[in-house]
Amino acid sequence: MATGPTIRDVAARAGTSTAVVSYVLNDGPRPVAPATRARVLAAVAELGYRRNNLARALRANRSSTLGLVVPDLAKPFFAELTRAVEDAAFTRGFRLLVGSAHFDAERENEQLHALLDARVDAVLLVPSQEPKSAVALLRRAQIPHVLVHRTHPDTVCVAGDDTDAGRQAADHLLGHGHHNIALLGAGAGDDPVSLRARGASAALTDNDRPVPQWAVLGCPFPNLREEAYRATRTLLATRPEITAICATTDEHALGALRAASETGRRVGEDLALVSIDGTELGAYLAPALTAVTAPFDTLGADAVDAVLSSSGVAPAIRQHQFTLTVRRSCGCRS
Amino acid sequence: MATGPTIRDVAARAGTSTAVVSYVLNDGPRPVAPATRARVLAAVAELGYRRNNLARALRANRSSTLGLVVPDLAKPFFAELTRAVEDAAFTRGFRLLVGSAHFDAERENEQLHALLDARVDAVLLVPSQEPKSAVALLRRAQIPHVLVHRTHPDTVCVAGDDTDAGRQAADHLLGHGHHNIALLGAGAGDDPVSLRARGASAALTDNDRPVPQWAVLGCPFPNLREEAYRATRTLLATRPEITAICATTDEHALGALRAASETGRRVGEDLALVSIDGTELGAYLAPALTAVTAPFDTLGADAVDAVLSSSGVAPAIRQHQFTLTVRRSCGCRS
Repeated sequence: MATGPTIRDVAARAGTSTAVVSYVLNDGPRPVAPATRARVLAAVAELGYRRNNLARALRANRSSTLGLVVPDLAKPFFAELTRAVEDAAFTRGFRLLVGSAHFDAERENEQLHALLDARVDAVLLVPSQEPKSAVALLRRAQIPHVLVHRTHPDTVCVAGDDTDAGRQAADHLLGHGHHNIALLGAGAGDDPVSLRARGASAALTDNDRPVPQWAVLGCPFPNLREEAYRATRTLLATRPEITAICATTDEHALGALRAASETGRRVGEDLALVSIDGTELGAYLAPALTAVTAPFDTLGADAVDAVLSSSGVAPAIRQHQFTLTVRRSCGCRS
Repeated sequence: MATGPTIRDVAARAGTSTAVVSYVLNDGPRPVAPATRARVLAAVAELGYRRNNLARALRANRSSTLGLVVPDLAKPFFAELTRAVEDAAFTRGFRLLVGSAHFDAERENEQLHALLDARVDAVLLVPSQEPKSAVALLRRAQIPHVLVHRTHPDTVCVAGDDTDAGRQAADHLLGHGHHNIALLGAGAGDDPVSLRARGASAALTDNDRPVPQWAVLGCPFPNLREEAYRATRTLLATRPEITAICATTDEHALGALRAASETGRRVGEDLALVSIDGTELGAYLAPALTAVTAPFDTLGADAVDAVLSSSGVAPAIRQHQFTLTVRRSCGCRS
């Protein structure tokens, strides 16, 4: 396969042994002095060295199977992302085994171990929470891995530009002339919902129009549908001036639609709704959902490519853009 | 269970994962750094850890992992069924790896092989089509297995009573006084959609009221939402006398809802709709869906119990009843 630089080239340039280069690239099993580590990483960068994990796996009794852990398969977003990863894996000659973590740290850890015990060739993880310990586990296991839909500085990450997605959603509602916009979803973390909420907040406050009277409505994980439903019921009862809702996920949008339906508000007519996620389900809701849509197929394909070719060489964020899908809920086609 | 120290205690004291402890105790399958190995052995000695269940399982070459293959994880019915199986597995101390078959015979076969190669303890299969060859594969592999949501005479099967579910859905619409009822979904096989359609047809034709003017509308697999949407658009345009729709799955119901919404029919008011499946999504649709609801948790728990006790057990069908969930789409609460 590869005709590029080898681990011997890297070792020669860094003035060390191939074993030490391996310890640096695999984060173990032996410690490496910081100065040596820096020389090795510099040599990797200068030579453009890429570990051929696929070839390594072939030599090492590979299973032709990839593993994926997601927070909850019963949520349409993760189900569609899973299908995209699965299609990418099969297209490249790999099968895919999936574990669901139920948004629970311990279960995520169990499912990662199940995949390691199953001797999959590589692991893709959509983290249920801050992924530090999961990343540490995967590094210790010396298995190619990639994070999807969430980032961590120590590893390769494939994610959508969630901040920009939030901005797009809010901008669309501002473009409709709304001034009183509620934002469903909040957070101070670096999880996708928080990033989307911050992007939307920035758009709402950083524009020439009057600042919205009312902005952010938090909804605790993991039952976003139900929390968003309750929050929107309260909102519609107490804040009649609100004419538009920006939902940070389709789960939030489902809750908002239910609340609007039960209280007689006509979404797309007297209440505008824009969502973020863009799952296939949105086309089948009444009214059909206008949504800033995640690049599911691109995320799946790039995550599989990343984990089969380059993981472990250098941490990086491979970011992909969302696109707006206009349907009826925003009022564009009422 | 054991009251002594567990493998988790050893892992915590050694500052590593349970998988690594297992690799040390079993001398593989993955390598462990010498320093880590020493810490694990020290923790074993300090805690007086004795391998018990895990050790026995490992000696018996068990993985404490079950495998599940479903037709399509991106469909809410299979996603909820998967979550039920997963909860049942974890409650019983087993992890669950899942493969999705994309309603494709070849991919189903690949995913079954991936689970066998992963050395799972048992396989649960929700077949994508007639399961004869899949059952033969699982029998040849001599692995405990169970079919879920579909039956085959050669093996243990856990399924809902789909024929009765169809009957319940049609009976509810007849009870509302509807005479002109369209049935979304058809088939002559023994798959769940066909059984539900036949149960509904039987109820529609075997009652004291006039026979419905119009009955059965087939929708080819696998894109039931889109097919049901198109069929319902045509139906509403050409058969104004139809006042009620019986959908054989929530996928069909989603398509019908979209068609009704786009043509200005108000479901629950001038058009009644009853579905079968009863996924959680139904509560969030507008109007909320009246549905004959599958016993997801019972199916998941019974399937796991069946497969964990199935070596040498005779083929059998373990059948469970659906229950009606009344919401708004049928007109009961308009």
